[in-house]
Amino acid sequence: MSANSPQTSSDFLAACRALSGAAHVLDDPADMAPFLRDWRGRFTGQALAVLRPGSVDEVAGLVQLCAAYRIPLVPQGGNTGLVLGSVPDASGSAVVLSLARLNRVRAIDAVNRTMTVDAGCILQQVQEAAAVEGCLFPLSLAAEGSCTIGGNLSTNAGGIAVLRYGNTRELCLGLEVVTPQGEVWSGLRGLRKDNTGYDLRDLFIGAEGTLGVITGAVLKLFPQPKASITALAALPSPQAALQLLTMMQDSCGASLTGFELMSAYCLELVARHFPQLQQPFAHKHAQYVLLELSSSESEEHAVQLLERGIGAALEASVIEDAAVASSVAQSLALWQLREHIPLAQAADGKNIKHDISLPVSRIGEYIAHTEPLLQQAFPGCRLVCFGHLGDGNLHFNVAPPAGIASEAFLANQDAVNRVVHDAVVAFGGSISAEHGIGALKRDELARYKSPVELNLMRAIKAALDPLGIMNPGKIL
Amino acid sequence: MSANSPQTSSDFLAACRALSGAAHVLDDPADMAPFLRDWRGRFTGQALAVLRPGSVDEVAGLVQLCAAYRIPLVPQGGNTGLVLGSVPDASGSAVVLSLARLNRVRAIDAVNRTMTVDAGCILQQVQEAAAVEGCLFPLSLAAEGSCTIGGNLSTNAGGIAVLRYGNTRELCLGLEVVTPQGEVWSGLRGLRKDNTGYDLRDLFIGAEGTLGVITGAVLKLFPQPKASITALAALPSPQAALQLLTMMQDSCGASLTGFELMSAYCLELVARHFPQLQQPFAHKHAQYVLLELSSSESEEHAVQLLERGIGAALEASVIEDAAVASSVAQSLALWQLREHIPLAQAADGKNIKHDISLPVSRIGEYIAHTEPLLQQAFPGCRLVCFGHLGDGNLHFNVAPPAGIASEAFLANQDAVNRVVHDAVVAFGGSISAEHGIGALKRDELARYKSPVELNLMRAIKAALDPLGIMNPGKIL
Repeated sequence: MSANSPQTSSDFLAACRALSGAAHVLDDPADMAPFLRDWRGRFTGQALAVLRPGSVDEVAGLVQLCAAYRIPLVPQGGNTGLVLGSVPDASGSAVVLSLARLNRVRAIDAVNRTMTVDAGCILQQVQEAAAVEGCLFPLSLAAEGSCTIGGNLSTNAGGIAVLRYGNTRELCLGLEVVTPQGEVWSGLRGLRKDNTGYDLRDLFIGAEGTLGVITGAVLKLFPQPKASITALAALPSPQAALQLLTMMQDSCGASLTGFELMSAYCLELVARHFPQLQQPFAHKHAQYVLLELSSSESEEHAVQLLERGIGAALEASVIEDAAVASSVAQSLALWQLREHIPLAQAADGKNIKHDISLPVSRIGEYIAHTEPLLQQAFPGCRLVCFGHLGDGNLHFNVAPPAGIASEAFLANQDAVNRVVHDAVVAFGGSISAEHGIGALKRDELARYKSPVELNLMRAIKAALDPLGIMNPGKIL
Repeated sequence: MSANSPQTSSDFLAACRALSGAAHVLDDPADMAPFLRDWRGRFTGQALAVLRPGSVDEVAGLVQLCAAYRIPLVPQGGNTGLVLGSVPDASGSAVVLSLARLNRVRAIDAVNRTMTVDAGCILQQVQEAAAVEGCLFPLSLAAEGSCTIGGNLSTNAGGIAVLRYGNTRELCLGLEVVTPQGEVWSGLRGLRKDNTGYDLRDLFIGAEGTLGVITGAVLKLFPQPKASITALAALPSPQAALQLLTMMQDSCGASLTGFELMSAYCLELVARHFPQLQQPFAHKHAQYVLLELSSSESEEHAVQLLERGIGAALEASVIEDAAVASSVAQSLALWQLREHIPLAQAADGKNIKHDISLPVSRIGEYIAHTEPLLQQAFPGCRLVCFGHLGDGNLHFNVAPPAGIASEAFLANQDAVNRVVHDAVVAFGGSISAEHGIGALKRDELARYKSPVELNLMRAIKAALDPLGIMNPGKIL
């Protein structure tokens, strides 16, 4: 995208100010800074301005101006993405279009179990508004206090409840989108079944703002479970964790709402950096699984299901030991171990992160195949392997060997990616399970996708955004 | 699509025969007849030939020939569709591309809970192959003995298990598609999470063969429930049925696997045409709900859940009476009442059919609003209203008044559609819940969709199928 002349830029900004008010067009570097820096602090882009529209009509008007002036725009929600999808590049030619001021819960229909929200609503606000009506909005992830539902939709966010409730895609019934031409598509339908033409909704979901700007959504709600109860199981291997998953799903069905794998090294990191968190086992085991059982009936029923499942797994020698929470406080304590892994990683220094998915059945094989290859290429490197095993999703992060500085090790990023991602593709997996592509994994996508698939994507992009102004340089 | 010269047609057919064998290129009218007649017997199209490829490569080769010769093609599975989506028009310029010979189950992975199938597999064959591995493929609908999974995917079929398991879209993880250029997109991924670019899968699902030909799919499997148990509840109104739905979902969660509404008139029709089927209630009630509870634990648990729910609903006067099946045979007998409604309708004569969906919360209001409008416009007409209440999906069929011949009444089709569909749109619903658009509802789609949405669809169609050869005249 070529840079605009100073006159064009200034005319454009004047038109933006006239449209949405001068206070909502930021071009002071200090004001813009938080919108330009990525969540992990690894990249800072530049922008002509940050636009903060206060209504859907203003979004449409601003996109029309972008189209008229050929100004690229980067839609942004909470800016908590991990793949440089919501920050502009270094050219300074684009504007950031922040949806943060569109933050109303528009309506809740508890009987239809739906909720209509602005894209800029914070995920936690959505969860809380659902809870007030006695309903559950199950999407849950680490950034939930900052990320927006529009960003969740644009990246098809995953999180810890996918096993039972699906990704963000499965939690959305309808969308409102401003097209690259600045028109408003009102697809805010609250319907479980609707076979009237192409599935535009799912095309915009996960498109990371490259095909249009999501401004509103109809979300699916669920009955609140009566109780959830948690256990930590100790196991000899990922393969045993898979056996446990099959056993638990067979005996508990949809009541199994969480199934998180953590390697011994993950809990060691947590113990090192958060010694105040109690770890339940006296002896070290190779792998751990955090299980969550939920019941629509009663706490007693949840406990009974969990204890029966754990008992059967112990008897079959699938697990070596288990700690079952006997209170909500104990459940939270077990979840805290899981939730502190990313924090313990950060405290330990930077590492090379991967967000991969595999057919669930091949996870044990994948780890057994890939870990030795990494050790061979980078002797002493340490694998921080944890994730949503029930969804086949691993955070397969590679940390430097003891005594090697993080920054020096990060120079190996491409070589490490090659080992991890080549193996992912060989095992039928995905190089981005839940974080998306953004600018960070664009080259990886081009490397691993077939030309047929890339051409289909490019044809759709060109058809919907012929000017190429929507979040350029992301995905494609 | 202009007609081809006889020489072009004959060259094209010769090339097709060379590619897939003369035995698999049918152009004898008697051989072609079953491929040209629609399932309901209301329309018969014409075709240049019926092509029956035996492999994905042959499909690709034949589509390349269609593109080269500019011959439109109509992909066809079991040809059981209800909206004229799988039969050619009357021009005779198109070929039918039957997927019936692609009927292998390619692989089952019971641990990953996935199954890879050819598009031409019969749905029942898919269900049975899953069951052999101890798994459930939950898609279930009246035509399951004849329809193919490729057709189910292309129409995003619904059926009786959507409440718990979703539409066909939600049951598919990966696709293989031959593009309008005759390239093969191999998207046969068995992943629960994959955020690598645009969601091509969901674009092809439900596109009714207008964007490409689905040749294979990776389907989601589930653990088989240990038991399912059924009850029939009698209620005073659709509104009461909604209350029952909320109560049952709150207390049973995902164990509620079926929730079908039937009006008194539906069961009267069944009694008239199938008097051998036993109806459980001595007195007539305004509405009936068939409930199905499934348990991953035990039959005892399913019975307990169902009886507890029914008991609470009786106590709260939400339902007037209930018959709980005490055996598998009794459960089947209750399901038979539901399944015989379409048959009883057919035996009673043709009527004007609608496959609508609404926000679940508005179903009572919708019926209360629309039935009087129909009575006013067509005094004495009879409403055959039944459907998947839990999904907001009603089959809202309008039969002639007593003494009026079906054929004469069918002349009112447009006027009846206007009353029913105008009201659907006013209540935020859809004019096609699970059957699709095909050629039958194309004009209705154009009438009710916004220009923005139609233009987005047209842009996608033009981008992927610039020659316009893929199932022309369907949807758009």
